[in-house]
Amino acid sequence: MQVVILCGGSGTRLWPVSRSLYPKQFVKIFGEHSLFQKTILRNASLASSFSVVINQDQYFMGLDQAEETGVAANRKFILEPTGRNTAPAIALAALAARPDEVLLVVPSDHLIDKQSDYEEAVRKAEELAIKGKLVTFGIKPGYAETGYGYIESNGLEVKSFKEKPDAKTAEEYVRAGNYFWNSGMFCMKAGVFLEELQILAPDIFESCLRAFTNAKSDTALRISLEDMKAIRSESIDYAVMEKSKKVNVIPADIGWSDLGSFDSLYDTLPKDKEGNTVSQNVIHISSKNNLVIGGKRLISTIDVNDLIIVDTADALVIAQKGSTQKVKELVGLVKKHNPEMTEVHTTAHRPWGTYTILEENAGYKVKQITVRPGAKLSYQYHHHRSEHWIVVRGIASITIDDKSFELKANESTYIPKEAKHRLANLQNDELVIIEAQVGEYLGEDDIVRLQDDYKRN
Amino acid sequence: MQVVILCGGSGTRLWPVSRSLYPKQFVKIFGEHSLFQKTILRNASLASSFSVVINQDQYFMGLDQAEETGVAANRKFILEPTGRNTAPAIALAALAARPDEVLLVVPSDHLIDKQSDYEEAVRKAEELAIKGKLVTFGIKPGYAETGYGYIESNGLEVKSFKEKPDAKTAEEYVRAGNYFWNSGMFCMKAGVFLEELQILAPDIFESCLRAFTNAKSDTALRISLEDMKAIRSESIDYAVMEKSKKVNVIPADIGWSDLGSFDSLYDTLPKDKEGNTVSQNVIHISSKNNLVIGGKRLISTIDVNDLIIVDTADALVIAQKGSTQKVKELVGLVKKHNPEMTEVHTTAHRPWGTYTILEENAGYKVKQITVRPGAKLSYQYHHHRSEHWIVVRGIASITIDDKSFELKANESTYIPKEAKHRLANLQNDELVIIEAQVGEYLGEDDIVRLQDDYKRN
Repeated sequence: MQVVILCGGSGTRLWPVSRSLYPKQFVKIFGEHSLFQKTILRNASLASSFSVVINQDQYFMGLDQAEETGVAANRKFILEPTGRNTAPAIALAALAARPDEVLLVVPSDHLIDKQSDYEEAVRKAEELAIKGKLVTFGIKPGYAETGYGYIESNGLEVKSFKEKPDAKTAEEYVRAGNYFWNSGMFCMKAGVFLEELQILAPDIFESCLRAFTNAKSDTALRISLEDMKAIRSESIDYAVMEKSKKVNVIPADIGWSDLGSFDSLYDTLPKDKEGNTVSQNVIHISSKNNLVIGGKRLISTIDVNDLIIVDTADALVIAQKGSTQKVKELVGLVKKHNPEMTEVHTTAHRPWGTYTILEENAGYKVKQITVRPGAKLSYQYHHHRSEHWIVVRGIASITIDDKSFELKANESTYIPKEAKHRLANLQNDELVIIEAQVGEYLGEDDIVRLQDDYKRN
Repeated sequence: MQVVILCGGSGTRLWPVSRSLYPKQFVKIFGEHSLFQKTILRNASLASSFSVVINQDQYFMGLDQAEETGVAANRKFILEPTGRNTAPAIALAALAARPDEVLLVVPSDHLIDKQSDYEEAVRKAEELAIKGKLVTFGIKPGYAETGYGYIESNGLEVKSFKEKPDAKTAEEYVRAGNYFWNSGMFCMKAGVFLEELQILAPDIFESCLRAFTNAKSDTALRISLEDMKAIRSESIDYAVMEKSKKVNVIPADIGWSDLGSFDSLYDTLPKDKEGNTVSQNVIHISSKNNLVIGGKRLISTIDVNDLIIVDTADALVIAQKGSTQKVKELVGLVKKHNPEMTEVHTTAHRPWGTYTILEENAGYKVKQITVRPGAKLSYQYHHHRSEHWIVVRGIASITIDDKSFELKANESTYIPKEAKHRLANLQNDELVIIEAQVGEYLGEDDIVRLQDDYKRN
């Protein structure tokens, strides 16, 4: 069986923790592993191979996080230049598989608590998939949620798919007992899915086939932007599942949560005896049932209950519990005035490591740059800024115009405007430099890449 | 008339906005001017001279802020090496004045809204002071506050001073109509006060006289630590006012507030029509009656009411309105784990300007240093750290061992461990440098000052 991990989501419901270029599946909210990594680990014993459908901008983050898990299974990345919802993403993964291969399709941003129940449900689904079924997983509803679609079942048969219900209808669904939350997980043979897609949504099938055929394959399968744009955006539910006669549903009680809001995050995080989530660097005085997500800063509460407090380097959100659906509205407002703040953190992830903006003012910008062992930034120059580099940890290998040299901690150098330069870490330990940029224009787009290990030029 | 501004307070009730080395009288919470500056401006038309009794560590901050006001009156600073409460502070100011000079003694951290009512009250007090009275100002109570002492009056006569009452007693006071809040403002001839002090608290009088006689006078009057420590700590109320027969009270309805907590701060700040204080860089969604004090970071609220939200670079406090008396408890807890955080901000004020810690990690620290025009840091060296300086704005005049040179924006230099060095701004514009410190030990106390314009060596 091959696990297909859908990684293209860029939801902003957990903003400011998640940003469109650092979506929630990659955030390490639960300690050691991100939700994406948890997804890999959860399926490690079930699958011989993985394919990851991911936005090309997140490829290196996904690759790094996959490597961090230590799961050595055969791994393939399919890079989308832009998202087209789940039907095309799954079609591309199916085209890259053998037709008789069983695919277990899973989102990368959900949480599943009950591993053995999950494995059991997957094994049942696999049996049905082998028999030619398109299997969906129906989550036993814990309560009358109005934010999900429901699947009405009759045993393994699907009677109907239901849109998000109102509160009264949701209660009826829960009482009836044969309605399940639509989890977005599927199991089926690649060939069976493609045949159904060809019948039920032939335009999507054709445009995906063309995109797949034209794709460049090196370390990953790269779909061209032109081909991707030509594909109609559609969910697998609308395109196939709601129309196909081959659909089965496996009821699953697997401790599932989609972490669609800070409210559901609160429910899943460990809490102390006052009901506050457990966090470092937080002092609660007479405060109960609060979710606090923080970073470096000390956070203290006094006599407050049922609050969602989310603190990042550049944005702080304080919401009443139960109101976190309005984060979406907030993100819309932020986007108007400061779109960059919805896209990236002050710490940005790059294929070679990370940088953090420490200070930004008219005429200068200060960054802390961390380069991972063995990584190289692109060979580049800038039209508008000079740069000062001070090595504060590790050893930097530096090229400036015709000169190559090493700098160790407590040494510095200067890169004038227009000088071609490159920074690399050829050691086995992390390299950290402090960079002060000076110039009239300091935008990230003032960069001319002459060579790049990560094909960004 | 001479105005005596008492500036020695270092309360932490507005932590994390105020810190013990940056007390609330110097914080610019109300926009352009700090409470200390407002105090100067309020009294500018009433007085021909000012004396400021201030902790010596705050001298340069006080001096700078006084100069910023543009009030050109004759100005004298009396520097206390440590605080001994109000009786000694006022005694030192009185000793430095002519005996027949009328002193108007005012705290530096209160707010007064009704300027013309204030001026009228002061003029009445001055008349009584000329006649030899010790005049105190009684604030007409707006409500039954239990946090203040009260003055019981009979016309201008004081019948008694009352300790902080319980709620029931406070209500009786307010109903009675002849009870007033003790505001901590006084008006009297210097000589009359000193005579009364000599009779009622002779030890304080004697030790203050000794301290004054021994004090060094240059740009300011500097009391020695030894002499200051020998003075008994006592308030003017206990030492003199509650015992003297010469006390009068002027009832005053002057829009007075002592800003003793974030709750009272909320009451005095301008608010929008939802009752939220007006702040930059804040997005409120369905939120009402909140106090938000922030800085650079974007702050957003969703469906929250009656919260106190105070955000600084290193500490965030979220409190229920009405509970901000517990900030004191919080500061006690913070002090245990991180005392520095109760003393200074990440931006620290120095006589020569400010520095902000941008990043701090094992082995290195990054600072942004701003040097005011004409200012010089001390001539110094460090045992444990090297420093890299990058000028990003202005022109630096630098000495390193035997070399003196200038650096302009986009130039840098290196100061090895043990090298004697000095940074100065001899220009008319601000100088900004980025400093990266590298070393095993990076504490602020690793500094050997060889010469200092501000007498800190």
